Amino acid sequence: MIRHYTLTISCPDRAGIIAAVTGFIAQHGGFIVEASYHTEQDEQRFFMRQEIRADSLPFDADEFSRLFSPLADEFSMNWQLADSARNKRLVILVSRQDHCLDDLLHRWRSGELKVDIPCVISNHEDLRSFVEWHKIPFIHVDMTDKLTAFERIAALFEEYQGDTMVLARFMQILPPVLCQRYPRRIINIHHSFLPSFVGAKPYHQAYQRGVKLIGATCHYVTDELDAGPIIEQDTVRIDHGDTVDDLVRYGRDIEKTVLSRGLRYHVEDRVLVCGNKTIVFK
Amino acid sequence: MIRHYTLTISCPDRAGIIAAVTGFIAQHGGFIVEASYHTEQDEQRFFMRQEIRADSLPFDADEFSRLFSPLADEFSMNWQLADSARNKRLVILVSRQDHCLDDLLHRWRSGELKVDIPCVISNHEDLRSFVEWHKIPFIHVDMTDKLTAFERIAALFEEYQGDTMVLARFMQILPPVLCQRYPRRIINIHHSFLPSFVGAKPYHQAYQRGVKLIGATCHYVTDELDAGPIIEQDTVRIDHGDTVDDLVRYGRDIEKTVLSRGLRYHVEDRVLVCGNKTIVFK
Amino acid sequence: MIRHYTLTISCPDRAGIIAAVTGFIAQHGGFIVEASYHTEQDEQRFFMRQEIRADSLPFDADEFSRLFSPLADEFSMNWQLADSARNKRLVILVSRQDHCLDDLLHRWRSGELKVDIPCVISNHEDLRSFVEWHKIPFIHVDMTDKLTAFERIAALFEEYQGDTMVLARFMQILPPVLCQRYPRRIINIHHSFLPSFVGAKPYHQAYQRGVKLIGATCHYVTDELDAGPIIEQDTVRIDHGDTVDDLVRYGRDIEKTVLSRGLRYHVEDRVLVCGNKTIVFK
Amino acid sequence: MIRHYTLTISCPDRAGIIAAVTGFIAQHGGFIVEASYHTEQDEQRFFMRQEIRADSLPFDADEFSRLFSPLADEFSMNWQLADSARNKRLVILVSRQDHCLDDLLHRWRSGELKVDIPCVISNHEDLRSFVEWHKIPFIHVDMTDKLTAFERIAALFEEYQGDTMVLARFMQILPPVLCQRYPRRIINIHHSFLPSFVGAKPYHQAYQRGVKLIGATCHYVTDELDAGPIIEQDTVRIDHGDTVDDLVRYGRDIEKTVLSRGLRYHVEDRVLVCGNKTIVFK
Repeated sequence: MIRHYTLTISCPDRAGIIAAVTGFIAQHGGFIVEASYHTEQDEQRFFMRQEIRADSLPFDADEFSRLFSPLADEFSMNWQLADSARNKRLVILVSRQDHCLDDLLHRWRSGELKVDIPCVISNHEDLRSFVEWHKIPFIHVDMTDKLTAFERIAALFEEYQGDTMVLARFMQILPPVLCQRYPRRIINIHHSFLPSFVGAKPYHQAYQRGVKLIGATCHYVTDELDAGPIIEQDTVRIDHGDTVDDLVRYGRDIEKTVLSRGLRYHVEDRVLVCGNKTIVFK
Repeated sequence: MIRHYTLTISCPDRAGIIAAVTGFIAQHGGFIVEASYHTEQDEQRFFMRQEIRADSLPFDADEFSRLFSPLADEFSMNWQLADSARNKRLVILVSRQDHCLDDLLHRWRSGELKVDIPCVISNHEDLRSFVEWHKIPFIHVDMTDKLTAFERIAALFEEYQGDTMVLARFMQILPPVLCQRYPRRIINIHHSFLPSFVGAKPYHQAYQRGVKLIGATCHYVTDELDAGPIIEQDTVRIDHGDTVDDLVRYGRDIEKTVLSRGLRYHVEDRVLVCGNKTIVFK
Repeated sequence: MIRHYTLTISCPDRAGIIAAVTGFIAQHGGFIVEASYHTEQDEQRFFMRQEIRADSLPFDADEFSRLFSPLADEFSMNWQLADSARNKRLVILVSRQDHCLDDLLHRWRSGELKVDIPCVISNHEDLRSFVEWHKIPFIHVDMTDKLTAFERIAALFEEYQGDTMVLARFMQILPPVLCQRYPRRIINIHHSFLPSFVGAKPYHQAYQRGVKLIGATCHYVTDELDAGPIIEQDTVRIDHGDTVDDLVRYGRDIEKTVLSRGLRYHVEDRVLVCGNKTIVFK
Repeated sequence: MIRHYTLTISCPDRAGIIAAVTGFIAQHGGFIVEASYHTEQDEQRFFMRQEIRADSLPFDADEFSRLFSPLADEFSMNWQLADSARNKRLVILVSRQDHCLDDLLHRWRSGELKVDIPCVISNHEDLRSFVEWHKIPFIHVDMTDKLTAFERIAALFEEYQGDTMVLARFMQILPPVLCQRYPRRIINIHHSFLPSFVGAKPYHQAYQRGVKLIGATCHYVTDELDAGPIIEQDTVRIDHGDTVDDLVRYGRDIEKTVLSRGLRYHVEDRVLVCGNKTIVFK
């Protein structure tokens, strides 16, 4: 894959933003590979994402940033520049269920998901052997004392220099202080089509209500349970013949699909957040 | 289409029910065209539906019922026998939006939906010409006094001998007394994927929450708003670029699809109710 | 809806195209509402589509075109500028089946599909009353002599100043000379998921092969049967219990959905063609 | 899971079959857990599947078979009785790509897929470590001499007492003699929506044709390439921005989903074959 820079921007909407940014890139010979734009009407806010071939520019990412700053200031931009040569580092948290973990590790070892996984953290020992077969450190954290446990998790996240924390069916509610420390950096997969069936045992809730489809939701974690910005969702059809166990089984497939898609968008800097909503430039 | 009888049964679960019922049918030479079974485990209740060719039986529906009664009593069955030669009569209620009405009337006039439509009732005059082009009576009911209006609607439903009342985006909440008078005989299309976004303006609610799919739900009306047994649901993908108007537009397509499917199941006696859930024998 | 111009461009790929075009627009104060870009790698060809608010520009479409021409020449662009104030004119051809026609006319009369429909042409009289209820001229063309019939159709298309000819289940194969006269201006709905089941009776073919989903395809007509550039497709699940009649019934729903989506993209100038493929800027 | 027997039957259609079979079961106190019926109209052939609780019957599977035989003969039935206590044995063949293998082994080790996997056979060494981590024998077969190689594969299949051979992206065409030796016992996943794009490089073919969805097909292998009875299929949406590599990536997800669903139906004796079509009792 050819190295590229990904420039993501949000700023107040007005005429001429695209021209200014693409003019800056063109002026330095930059070759745009992919370009996406969106205006959030209610907020009068503009969002954009550009992928630029690294080898088409006469300077590196630092110099790009230095030269781009005055323009960014002029338009009051929030912006960031990512370099495809640097993998994002995902710290994965799991409990006993391994379908999402298995799916992510397969995508990682096949090269489909271009990330580093510095460690996997779990409150159970069950998945140690599987993780270690991948030569990834597996760290068990005892959850008896939740306060201490989450401090340990935060410390491990820092120690292993994680960019993003992935709750791959971790089954533990993170304390608000931790959620607030890492805004837009903690990703959860919830096993329902939110906002339906928040909280515990969503498949039982769905079964009781008699819905005809079930779903899963990948979202950024905030301090309000299952209420953060939604990155990706999907549903699957069920019928009256399906037991709760069948729902759980269908659910596993939709959970891993939705998590892997959402994570891919996040890792490729395709997700921008506006209030409690996401813009996803696919 | 060949004339057939549809026998639907629910009863306490035990061994031998299928044998007893199909034995009865076979004993009279009955030819089963379609057969479906389901046990609701939590309730230990059994549900079945049989389609039998009318011309394979030596008697008519009344005689069938008379002969079948002792067996039904033995197994404590709730049961009913429908004759495909008798169309169900749908009284359709609409407001100003006509996408569901247009869809239903097209399916009716093309012969796809085998029902009679004795009249269409509306609280607006807008759709009179379209309905009358179909040679179906169009009745305007003034909603200024809701109590009187709903009494009028109930009286019209009786006068036109309706079997089922279809709320095809009627946009009015039926009074509990009316809901209770016609259990499992009033069908509504709600423009959200229930239980998400109950009540008014579900597309606005969905837009605010930032969900990635929207849906529609066809359900029997009970005296609790949008909480009756769900017959059919579906979802459609949206993205950040879609405005509320786009959601409404996508929604129209999913609403008419879900309503027409749910209604078809109902009309063909494929929907059995157990508590607040449906068994749908497709 | 606010009036806007839609600028669509294709040209050889190189650095600086976006900057040049958006720079031109910005220089005249133009406000871009929606912007989409794509590079077709195999062809090294670049495609773009811009929606610009008409009221943000100090000149009209003609003057825009005059001023834009030198830039277009410099980049060897194929380009066109559409004005949302001018509706495209669709001439619809039907046979006896009316599900696609009903769907399109409903979208038109509800204002969802912003087009003019100067006339409907058919080889049967069946749908006259329905079309005329909409106050749209209905023209019967006798197909006994196909050569004469298609000359008449072409003449009517010219006389009614059609922009696009829509084959809404017309069930007649257009002669190559007619296909060649109107490249990318004739749209067909084929009742299979192409390239499977080309030609006649695709639902019978699907039934014989035992596929588990069926589909429909909206495409531009070329002189090779069912082989033109595909605009839109979709599929729906079937199972062993479905007869050919059931497939036809499911098919009607998927046909009208796919045709209306494809037509919407076409009418909004979202479809660009590259060889035998389409770029669809949704 | 409660032990049950699965009785699958096909026979010429006539009145009274269900009554006779369920009467036999009831007469011995048998409790039917799940019952499915289908008539293939063109062939006038009847198909049925019954799941019966083992503990409700006063005899074992052998005695069931002995007692049932006269009835089966009377109706000219092809029939078989499976015991859920005996797992089917899957011999999996792979090449280098491991997404389907990873998916199947995860479902196996989590207990979702109730089968035995006596060995995995491959023409490459790449996946040895992963398979052996599961404590499943991994056998490398050199394909230089195809004739010898396929004789070896058949011998291994016999030696390991395989019930079903699963081609999990094996990428080798089986010789007709092998296909004929194991009718309905070899299952393949083809990476296209058949009958489109038979043979090699279907994703390239799909890309060239410009389709808007791609798919995958799980089917029984016959001696005609990619033309055997279809068990399961599904599709996923793509667009003009997707490269062949993207298609391959989307394809992996749909391949493993379709293979695992099809395999589950097969393993649970839900798939009956009629000519070149399948009846799948879900």
